[in-house]
Amino acid sequence: MNTPELIRRKRDGIEIPAPELKEFIDGYVAGKIPDYQVSAFLMAVFFKGMTPKEAAALTRSMLESGEQFDLSGIEGPKVDKHSTGGVGDKVSLVLAPLVAAAGGIVPMVSGRGLGHSGGTLDKLDSIPGYKWKLEEKKFRKQLAKVGCGIIGQTEKFVPADRKLYALRDVTATVECVPLICGSILSKKRAAGTEYLVMDVKCGSGAFMENLDRARELSRGLISIGTALGMKVTAMLTQMSQPLGVAVGNALEVRESVELLKGGGPDDAREITLQLCAEMLVLAKISPNHKKAYATLESLIASGAALEKFKEWIEAQGGNARIIDKPELLEVSRQTSIVAAGKKGVVASIQTRDIGVAGNLLGAGRMQASDEVDTTVGMDVHVKPGDKVEKGQPLATIYHRNEKNLAQARAMVQAAIVIGSKPVKHLPLILEEIRK
Amino acid sequence: MNTPELIRRKRDGIEIPAPELKEFIDGYVAGKIPDYQVSAFLMAVFFKGMTPKEAAALTRSMLESGEQFDLSGIEGPKVDKHSTGGVGDKVSLVLAPLVAAAGGIVPMVSGRGLGHSGGTLDKLDSIPGYKWKLEEKKFRKQLAKVGCGIIGQTEKFVPADRKLYALRDVTATVECVPLICGSILSKKRAAGTEYLVMDVKCGSGAFMENLDRARELSRGLISIGTALGMKVTAMLTQMSQPLGVAVGNALEVRESVELLKGGGPDDAREITLQLCAEMLVLAKISPNHKKAYATLESLIASGAALEKFKEWIEAQGGNARIIDKPELLEVSRQTSIVAAGKKGVVASIQTRDIGVAGNLLGAGRMQASDEVDTTVGMDVHVKPGDKVEKGQPLATIYHRNEKNLAQARAMVQAAIVIGSKPVKHLPLILEEIRK
Repeated sequence: MNTPELIRRKRDGIEIPAPELKEFIDGYVAGKIPDYQVSAFLMAVFFKGMTPKEAAALTRSMLESGEQFDLSGIEGPKVDKHSTGGVGDKVSLVLAPLVAAAGGIVPMVSGRGLGHSGGTLDKLDSIPGYKWKLEEKKFRKQLAKVGCGIIGQTEKFVPADRKLYALRDVTATVECVPLICGSILSKKRAAGTEYLVMDVKCGSGAFMENLDRARELSRGLISIGTALGMKVTAMLTQMSQPLGVAVGNALEVRESVELLKGGGPDDAREITLQLCAEMLVLAKISPNHKKAYATLESLIASGAALEKFKEWIEAQGGNARIIDKPELLEVSRQTSIVAAGKKGVVASIQTRDIGVAGNLLGAGRMQASDEVDTTVGMDVHVKPGDKVEKGQPLATIYHRNEKNLAQARAMVQAAIVIGSKPVKHLPLILEEIRK
Repeated sequence: MNTPELIRRKRDGIEIPAPELKEFIDGYVAGKIPDYQVSAFLMAVFFKGMTPKEAAALTRSMLESGEQFDLSGIEGPKVDKHSTGGVGDKVSLVLAPLVAAAGGIVPMVSGRGLGHSGGTLDKLDSIPGYKWKLEEKKFRKQLAKVGCGIIGQTEKFVPADRKLYALRDVTATVECVPLICGSILSKKRAAGTEYLVMDVKCGSGAFMENLDRARELSRGLISIGTALGMKVTAMLTQMSQPLGVAVGNALEVRESVELLKGGGPDDAREITLQLCAEMLVLAKISPNHKKAYATLESLIASGAALEKFKEWIEAQGGNARIIDKPELLEVSRQTSIVAAGKKGVVASIQTRDIGVAGNLLGAGRMQASDEVDTTVGMDVHVKPGDKVEKGQPLATIYHRNEKNLAQARAMVQAAIVIGSKPVKHLPLILEEIRK
């Protein structure tokens, strides 16, 4: 393969045929094509984009680079959700057992926190005993029995994505629609997903701050997902405020349990149920959105969703007594209140800074090598549009020690902007994009 | 240094401050910054360009990456020429001794053939005994004594360029003005050049086929060269026909000797003398172009230029008897004539294909690892605008064996396009660009 010539064509906007893209990806995974040619190619893709054919071929090549889960022996539609990442996003922890309780098979392969956004695996690490390193065979057995599960990527799972992602991370080629689509969809397809609902977060705490970019990504995901034989829809959801109250790993698991019990914050419940309802309709478990929503509410009210959560956690070695004894989820006892400096209305929340403040406390990583402290984080008690009195608690910080506390406090204080004029509460679902 | 962040800023069109560019280049040369980050950066530069400040800082960082020749102890202006490369371009072989005979110091560091274009070092390889591997100290001695010399890059000479060039070659980032400028000017400056005349080739046998790109490159070279303390001018010269008659290494040296003796093809003599005159005026050796041109003509007529050629070749170990016994320059005795298929006028010459046909015969490399055969090549007897009779020889091919001969013949035949309408001869000097 003439790799410089392939890079040159991409650079000049000439479409690369699918067999050449496959040879390129295979050569990269096999170590025959060096990182330095791939990173030049990725930067050319950043500037020139990819045609729908190219993006589908790239994704398919990535998918075929490793083992694919064969879930054909398991009855029921294989349906999953993927979020582009945000602050306080604990949706997966509630959604997986809830959809499984409704009859879906949810084969989630999740990741760690990235930048200012949290990661599902980090959250699960706060559950005593929970193991997310699971081989395919065991995972398949669990899916057949329980209907859901959340694991991490294994060595043989889409190795092209692991290599490409690590390279993109250090070469400023992360923010690129066809590459993002390839990374997400190759993994979802390899996990056996047939129906996928994308949760595309928008706003100050999302990777996509504006709607146009979110729409572009959504359309890319739907087009490439379809080319790969999946049914994909996308919901653009609010990320100009933390999702729910809790931000931080054990705190978020605790809130997830509350949601499964029928409590918890309204916004987190509403976004979760809307995403679940979209999944049930897409996977033809429910005939329409209204019936799906009612089904989900009844599964929570009856305790069936919570029971499914228990089954899942136990199947992966976790201590399910956290359901009745939330104190088993260790949360730091050292707290610090951030209070309103004046009376007024919450005008906006710089949500990314809330995530970064959490990382400063240890809830996420500043560098890939950092250890996460699952016991720290914060509860953010207000949303844009809320009225506040002077001195009213805006956030409760849970910290391990004094390290970075002052800086985190200052960031949270500055992130929650208080104005004097009335402000409307933000809409939770911004848009639905279907094929 | 946060390299991904630096790449991201370049990608987004934010100017990189000079100290950071220096740290980046130093880190690369020291092996601290890996190829894959540099290639992503180079591709971002391909798309976003560089500001004049950035381009000057990049060039300076490259210059400072290795040893710089200190020619301050040698009297006389240090004046050089650089060509962007073409077919039949033997100008340096005539120009270096001619300008030295006029009182200039010409410290040429040349390269090998690249793509379809020839390389001065390959041509010099056809002179028995000639050594172009020379340490700085010896080269300096020679310059002080003879006034000129042509050597290859040593290990310590602009190592940043060697690394960057090798990387650009395999990552489709060669054709990029600030990177081309950096590569040319860092080497010229490191060789001690104070005055530089750029020979920017334009046309079907050049890397820059159109005038706008050639002008852009010229302006870049002048601006960055000035920032580096050099005086630079550019001449855009004709490359829609081979320069002179001979294409191929020994053949071109033979033609160069003819030119120094006052003979040789008119176009090669004229372009060489114009470039030399520009050098003499720029370096203040001559007060104006007319007087410079007259000086050069008299140096050829008197034999002084040829005598300087002899001194130079002998100083570098070459057999100067080639001057009187051209048969010492080994040229293959197997020849093959390409004749005109019809009566008419030469409408155009696909000059790049003439170069590629030469490579096919072995005069240049198809791959970096190929050996060059200095005895092969061709004489191209016609120029666009020439009238031809049916059966008249258009080119004489000198080949070693039958390998690739048919293909080379067919390429040459197709490259020389014969029409029926009158065509003007092409202008030799297209434009002069000065600060």
